[in-house]
Amino acid sequence: MVVDELSFCSLSEISSLIRGKEVSARELVDQQLSRLKSLEPRLNAFITVTEEEARAAAEDADRKLARGESAGLLHGVPMTLKDLLWTRGVRTTSGSKVSADFVPQEDATVVARLREAGALFLGKTNLHEFAYGISNVNPHYGPVHNPWDEQRISGGSSGGSAASLVAGIGYGSVGTDTGGSIRIPSSLCGTVGLKPTYGLVSRYGVTPLAWSLDHVGPMARSVKDVAILFDVLAAYDPKDPTSRKRKLAPVSSDLDGIPSGLLMAVHSGYFFEDLDPQVRKLVEAAVEDLEKLGLERVEVSIPEIEQQGTCRNVITLAEAASYHEPSLRERPEEYGPATRELLELGLLVRATEYLTAQRARRRIVEAFSEAFQGFDVLVSPTVPVPAPRIGEELLTNGEKLRPGLLRLPTPFNTTGFPAISVPCGFTSEGLPVGLQLAARPFHEKRLLQVAYAYERSHRWVDRHPGKN
Amino acid sequence: MVVDELSFCSLSEISSLIRGKEVSARELVDQQLSRLKSLEPRLNAFITVTEEEARAAAEDADRKLARGESAGLLHGVPMTLKDLLWTRGVRTTSGSKVSADFVPQEDATVVARLREAGALFLGKTNLHEFAYGISNVNPHYGPVHNPWDEQRISGGSSGGSAASLVAGIGYGSVGTDTGGSIRIPSSLCGTVGLKPTYGLVSRYGVTPLAWSLDHVGPMARSVKDVAILFDVLAAYDPKDPTSRKRKLAPVSSDLDGIPSGLLMAVHSGYFFEDLDPQVRKLVEAAVEDLEKLGLERVEVSIPEIEQQGTCRNVITLAEAASYHEPSLRERPEEYGPATRELLELGLLVRATEYLTAQRARRRIVEAFSEAFQGFDVLVSPTVPVPAPRIGEELLTNGEKLRPGLLRLPTPFNTTGFPAISVPCGFTSEGLPVGLQLAARPFHEKRLLQVAYAYERSHRWVDRHPGKN
Repeated sequence: MVVDELSFCSLSEISSLIRGKEVSARELVDQQLSRLKSLEPRLNAFITVTEEEARAAAEDADRKLARGESAGLLHGVPMTLKDLLWTRGVRTTSGSKVSADFVPQEDATVVARLREAGALFLGKTNLHEFAYGISNVNPHYGPVHNPWDEQRISGGSSGGSAASLVAGIGYGSVGTDTGGSIRIPSSLCGTVGLKPTYGLVSRYGVTPLAWSLDHVGPMARSVKDVAILFDVLAAYDPKDPTSRKRKLAPVSSDLDGIPSGLLMAVHSGYFFEDLDPQVRKLVEAAVEDLEKLGLERVEVSIPEIEQQGTCRNVITLAEAASYHEPSLRERPEEYGPATRELLELGLLVRATEYLTAQRARRRIVEAFSEAFQGFDVLVSPTVPVPAPRIGEELLTNGEKLRPGLLRLPTPFNTTGFPAISVPCGFTSEGLPVGLQLAARPFHEKRLLQVAYAYERSHRWVDRHPGKN
Repeated sequence: MVVDELSFCSLSEISSLIRGKEVSARELVDQQLSRLKSLEPRLNAFITVTEEEARAAAEDADRKLARGESAGLLHGVPMTLKDLLWTRGVRTTSGSKVSADFVPQEDATVVARLREAGALFLGKTNLHEFAYGISNVNPHYGPVHNPWDEQRISGGSSGGSAASLVAGIGYGSVGTDTGGSIRIPSSLCGTVGLKPTYGLVSRYGVTPLAWSLDHVGPMARSVKDVAILFDVLAAYDPKDPTSRKRKLAPVSSDLDGIPSGLLMAVHSGYFFEDLDPQVRKLVEAAVEDLEKLGLERVEVSIPEIEQQGTCRNVITLAEAASYHEPSLRERPEEYGPATRELLELGLLVRATEYLTAQRARRRIVEAFSEAFQGFDVLVSPTVPVPAPRIGEELLTNGEKLRPGLLRLPTPFNTTGFPAISVPCGFTSEGLPVGLQLAARPFHEKRLLQVAYAYERSHRWVDRHPGKN
């Protein structure tokens, strides 16, 4: 891949350049669209490229700047959107044939918020069908290829977003995360992805997978860029019945420095079991680096975590089947075989099983809430392995693809606690590895501060596919 | 029945008499216990009489008063408790053989709150098995007889509480309401019962029936007494995950006078369909009386109400089965046949059916929220008929017993809106009829003010079984 320095600017850098009229939004969009087109045959990161809309929005952004008007921090900044988020007038496939022709009349709340802040969109990124999986091997739109090794998966279900970021196409993206779908591709592609506290970011206008576990969150190439997007996205939305009224102070302007005496918990059972040796080494080194940054390491054990996998599975199976039941009965053949199998399995779940899972979940949340009183961040790998090859069903650590990639991120869907994945180095094959940090509800700032300090002590952010 | 004036004092009157040392708590308890014992063979309103505890608590109350200490508004006041509420050291059967020997180590939060306010308890009242029904014909402990006509049901599932009140045994009681279980017996026995807003009164230590529909609330012989108890019961409880933090100002000291220009809604479809002619006449007269008190009548129609019955049924079936599943599988023969049938039916509900019901419910709540912006109280009968005879399965209006008695109270379980039943007269056979008033969430004060004004314009409160 050819590396273009402008393409790998940070979101705040490119935003300054645009607003300072050193780069015209229109020229930038043209350049990013041609970059997209040259890479797309190898990456397959997009389902829809919104070329005309992007150019028109860029011209509008330039005109406004010429008149001395600035829409905000994202003025004229090209972004991408997971194709699960509704976009007014632009088809939103949710990665399926079932809704291949769906053109929303309304933007998702998060899309509207980004537009208000000045962002424009290059396209809708490829995803696992209906976000119901983690490989991003899509039966209708093809697999998303990992920019670090095109024979490997990007991870999913927000894999197109992660690939478009690491390939230098967009400066930020929005993904969704029901069992790790922001963090898994962030880990496998070497980007930063934040799954915020449940209810902090609106889900209005986002095709649901399992509403009691669904989260929407920002993805970017650096922690600071993720923080900037988080500040735009996190807001109460009366259109989303689960939206929380809690108002958080802006985080992106307050990332420098972490308070002394922060406690970092390591949960050796579960989170450090069955790791690929290279992942283990990199994550253990990251834990040591965090200690050097002043965090004190404590050991923790939350036995209830062992139940969370089944619990989350049952809830996902049932809620997804509930949402899809009408179209599953009408036109089952339009679903990919893997998605259809999961949905049909979901129809068999009994209400008492679902309710037992929700009641167990309440106990798990209580146990996490109590444990998380004892420390500031919990640190772990995001997933136990680097990106597997497309089609591989067995991971290098011996686990199967789906349960293996879901195991470490899902506890924070079950609990709704915020969690971020941040790159912590590369394997000998040059594949990125992600570090996961989690915190108490509404403690995104602490999470981002620690991730920012860690990121600054390394320079993974300057490493791109094609440039080592 | 022999009427004893002291037994029919209001809660505030008896409380003044005790605190003024005009009546000793111990003497009062002795009198009420002997009244209980003389009536119990005919009423069967109690599962457990806590004679010793009550006498000891009364002596303690008298000693405290002699020392100049007062516990509060309920100092030494004899009450009763539905036997679904856990009482420390006193068996709590929940009306079933399954938990016939269960002796809680802890009080329900509401019981603890009443004790703190000085109340003492004469006994645990008979109920429909596990609160799962509305006739109060209990297969293990026998039926509760209606004090106005002992051949008739008290209504349920808090029927023992209502019967003990109208028979002049306790001065207040606490019931539970999942589909009308406070309001149905209040209507059929001629007492006042309030189902508060969902989450306002703690459910900790109350055997659940269907937790997303379960409510705990006060029952008494007058609106003012209900308001006094409501002030004691309504409080945030961290032990109940659905408890609301909303703080309400005390209501019982602020009942006099209703603001001018209040709007009273009449929903002719659904709430005024298929009524026993005598019930219709009395409720229509009550509506006219409310107009004379200054309320302006408006017509309203909420079409979504037609779906709420099925919706609430599916949710109740599934949640009840989820709670009972372990013991239902271990010892099914200990359940009464009707309860067992409902629970086994609940095991067959699919998760998607449950979730579809919960999603439909959200739309119903939205429709109610919007409609209730247009008026202050909704007025209706509490149930369409006076108390049926024990064993009768067909009501005088042609409906079947269970769906007929559930129809009018359940919308306020589905929505969680507050609703009160207050007597509005007697049929030619001398059976009481209840008027139901409902309001927006957290508008208990408005509800109680209107009910109080209505009650004061009549004197049903002075009519007791055996005295016409």
